[in-house]
Formats: sequence, C-alpha cells, structure tokens
Amino acid sequence: MSLVIVGSVAFDTIRTPWGDREKIVGGSGTYCSLAASFFTRPRVVGVVGRDFPRKTLAELRSHGVDLAGLKIKAGKTFHWEGKYEDDPNRRTTLRTELNVFADFRPEIPAAYRASRIVYLANLNPEHHAYVLGQFRQPGIVAMDTIRLWIETKRETLLEELGRVQIFFANDEEARLITGETNLISAGKALIGLGPSLVLLKKGEHGALVFGRDFVFGVPAHPCEHVIDPTGAGDSFAGGFLGYLDRTRGLSVRDVRRAAVYGSVMASFAIEDFGIGRLLALDWDLIEARFRQFRKLTAF
Amino acid sequence: MSLVIVGSVAFDTIRTPWGDREKIVGGSGTYCSLAASFFTRPRVVGVVGRDFPRKTLAELRSHGVDLAGLKIKAGKTFHWEGKYEDDPNRRTTLRTELNVFADFRPEIPAAYRASRIVYLANLNPEHHAYVLGQFRQPGIVAMDTIRLWIETKRETLLEELGRVQIFFANDEEARLITGETNLISAGKALIGLGPSLVLLKKGEHGALVFGRDFVFGVPAHPCEHVIDPTGAGDSFAGGFLGYLDRTRGLSVRDVRRAAVYGSVMASFAIEDFGIGRLLALDWDLIEARFRQFRKLTAF
Repeated sequence: MSLVIVGSVAFDTIRTPWGDREKIVGGSGTYCSLAASFFTRPRVVGVVGRDFPRKTLAELRSHGVDLAGLKIKAGKTFHWEGKYEDDPNRRTTLRTELNVFADFRPEIPAAYRASRIVYLANLNPEHHAYVLGQFRQPGIVAMDTIRLWIETKRETLLEELGRVQIFFANDEEARLITGETNLISAGKALIGLGPSLVLLKKGEHGALVFGRDFVFGVPAHPCEHVIDPTGAGDSFAGGFLGYLDRTRGLSVRDVRRAAVYGSVMASFAIEDFGIGRLLALDWDLIEARFRQFRKLTAF
Repeated sequence: MSLVIVGSVAFDTIRTPWGDREKIVGGSGTYCSLAASFFTRPRVVGVVGRDFPRKTLAELRSHGVDLAGLKIKAGKTFHWEGKYEDDPNRRTTLRTELNVFADFRPEIPAAYRASRIVYLANLNPEHHAYVLGQFRQPGIVAMDTIRLWIETKRETLLEELGRVQIFFANDEEARLITGETNLISAGKALIGLGPSLVLLKKGEHGALVFGRDFVFGVPAHPCEHVIDPTGAGDSFAGGFLGYLDRTRGLSVRDVRRAAVYGSVMASFAIEDFGIGRLLALDWDLIEARFRQFRKLTAF
C-alpha cells in the first residue's frame, strides 16, 4: 500500500452567505491525504511556511498521514481566499498568495520512490515530468488540474494527460479542455486524450466515471446544507485513490466502489468549514454513508 | 389497469443547431401516452383540430392507446414552436398557437371515470377541480406543470399541489415554486406542499425521487447526441405512471423501478425528433436499456 500525494498544504479564507472563516487549514494535499488516511497511509509531498500550525501536522500524523515529504520553509504558507454565492458550485477567487509555494519544486523522499500510486493534485503541468522522473515506475499516475493551467498551459496539460492513467476533472474543466458541451462526449473525449479512467465530478449532481469500455454514474449524497464546498474534489480523489490503494486492484468493480467512497468522503468534507468534518470521522461513519449510497441508488 | 392522461396532442416546430422540423406531432398527452403504452393501455383526454393526421391517431391506437377521450374539433391543432441552443436543457418558446386547445374543457368519458391513475399534464391548474370532479375517487392523481402556471397561477397551483399524490417537476420549476436553490431542499419543500412523491427531473443529470421517508437518485442514460429534448419529461411521466399502473403497486421498490422505466423512456424520446423513436420501440429494447441502467449504476 503506497499512495503519494503531491499538492498544496495551505491556508484558506472562505466567504459564504452563511459565514466566513479566516485562514483555516486547507489545500489539495491536506484534504486528499486526510480523506485517503481512512483507507491507507498516504504520503504527502508539499511545502508550508513556519506559520503553519504544528497542531494540524500532529493531527494529520495521528490519522496516519506520512509527512516525511512535507517541507517546512522559512516564510509564509500558501494562502487562498475564495467566495461562494448561494450556488455552491460557483466560486470566485478573491486572493492567491503563493508565498513558499511560489518556487515549490517537489522533492520525492527516497522512501517514497517505489510507491504504487502517485497523485499530482492540480500542480503546474510543467512540473509533472520533474516529479514523475523521481519515481521508479509507479503503477498508477493520477492527476487533477485547475482552470488556470487549462487556460495558460494548455499544450503541456494535454501532453501530460497522455501520460497519466487517471484524470479527475469537474464539469467546467472537462468542457474547457475538450470543447464539448455534452458531458458524456466530454468524458469520452478526455479518455481519447490518454487516461484509462476519467472521474468527472459534478457537485450536487454526483459523478460520472468513464473507462475505456464502461460508464458509471453515482448521484451525490442528498445534502441540504452545504457549508463549505472547498476541498470536495480533493476529498473525492483521496477516498477514490485511498480505496484503490487499499484494495490493490483496478478492476471495474474496484473502480465503481472507489468512486462511491470518493463520493462518501466528498459528502462529509462539505458538511463543515475546512477539514473539521474529515478530522472527526471514523470508519463506522464512512461505512454507514457508503450504505446510504446503496439505499440512494438501489432499484 | 387504468391510466388517464389529460394533456395536449399537438404540432411542434423544433429548431436546433443540428436541424429543424416543421409541424411534427408532439404534445404532452402524445408523448406520455405513447411511452405509457408499453406498460398499460393509457387513455387520452385531449383535443385536436381537423388538420391532425389520421395516420398518427392510427399509430397511437395500434400501440394500444385509447383515444375515446380525444375530441376532434373544427379548427386547427395546438401548435408550439421552440428553439434549442447547444445546451439541450435550455429552450426558448418562439410561438404558441393554442387554436382548438384555447377553450379546451376536458370531458372525461364515462368509461374512464373509475380509472386508478389520473395524470394532469401541465394543464391550467384552474381546470384541475373540473377534471377531477368527473372521476370516482382515483387512487392516484399525478400532475406536472410549466413555468407559465408557476408565474401566473401560483396560488391555484399551490392549492392543487395539496391535492395530488405525485408531482413531476424539472429543476428550474422546483426552484421557482419553492425558492430553494439546493435541489434536495427544493424536493423536500415540494413534499411539504402535499404530494407523497416528487419526481425531480434534471435532464442530463438524471432524476431524483423524493418520498416522505426516502430519496432515490438515478443518473441519466449516457447519451452523446441529444437530437430533440422535447417530450423527455412527458415520456418520463409515461414510463413512470405506465409502470405503476401495470404493477398495481406503489411500494418504494415499485416507485424506484418506475423512475428507472421513466428514465428509460425519456432516454429514447430524445434520440430522434418528435415521437419517431418511441413509435419504433419494442419491449426488448426497453428491457435492454433498463439493464443498461443497472450496469450504469451498480457498485
């Protein structure tokens, strides 16, 4: 079992119509590793400043997250500020202070280099080759991206899509990359660009999984009060990849169940600001929600 | 087995980016009864003008649709013209010529009055009482509505919601009626207004079913080429109510399966302009697609 997550460990300031939070812990690497920690012992590669709370690092470690790849550098931690309106699927970035993340060149610890799964969480695609070059042929490379890279590094992004096995995208990103309005066409077009699995996340409408010869759909957990959608996608990736790492398989059945566990972790993440809800979880709660997904979808 | 559908039998002119069709057969009663005809012998109450093609009436009859309640009046048939852009979930009405439908007062034939299920397909809610008064206590009353009635007959519509058991709405209508952005909240709020079942149709995102103590979700059939979304909602209602009429039940299991059959019929309806695809169906094709929904959603 070995899953390496290369991503941001950061501060988020979140503004919503029902409340604000200043500089709470966030970041793709944080959400993803915490979600994955219920399935495997994820390894994080990232960087924080000296201002990052030791308490959070201790909490992550106590959840089984391996932080050997997390550098603590002089300076301030990456800080993102965003605002949600009534529709939690839409958000506006108000501020991005990269700080120590600005010249982050991910160094993979020797102990991580034989890992089975590598997840590149919305990294600048120009850095993928440098990161992957440090691994001894990982079995599965997974990546996510963000609008910024689609708009500014399109060519490199498309090249990188040709090298990964798993690609996570939300509906907007899938449409932007492929130019397809129809999400089924967009998902299939992404498969045509290289990955053997595409996870298309649709927020309140659930997720679609595209493989070379199957499509799987799962509705979202029926949540009435989305408190903070930040990190939902990263928590989905954490649950999905964590489950795949734990099962050691990659059959269609594994992938379907992994997508439901991804949906389970995302459904918890949005129930509170930041990583609060994920920190408070235990395996019984996760299994109970997995069973709720069965009830939601069985016919 | 007895399902009465009170709705429009009409002409549609459809404009899409990939082709137009002038004055083809459409209407809520047509789509709904044709979809239901694969499950039961639906009874249609409506009105057409002398210009309505006899060929279509013969086709409907040969599918087992009972047209004893369809009046043929001097004058022209209801004619709607609409336009779709790239996103098939959005449409613009270009023209509505009510013609003989303008003073349609639905008269229920004596033979229909003991029917088990009555479906009021986007009728003016002010006419519901008149229609329902002609029945001997139907077991199930179902209704749909349109934006026009939500905006112009809101009070009456809310009263009528308090009298029906089943309500069909798309996401836009559910939000307009309840004022809730979150679709789970909207679905629950609609249940709070009276119906014991709410069918919330989300186009490419599938459907949600709300009961008093359960939520069921089903993704849409993965369709890459939506040719004509007109009638998808009415075909959903036809499959749903037709299946419920056939099973004679209303258990949660019946309702879940009915919603999948509704999704099956809607998924066929959008594959061609007008009722062409529905007319060409047979039971094997319907069962094969039902099994595809199992494959789509099983984990």
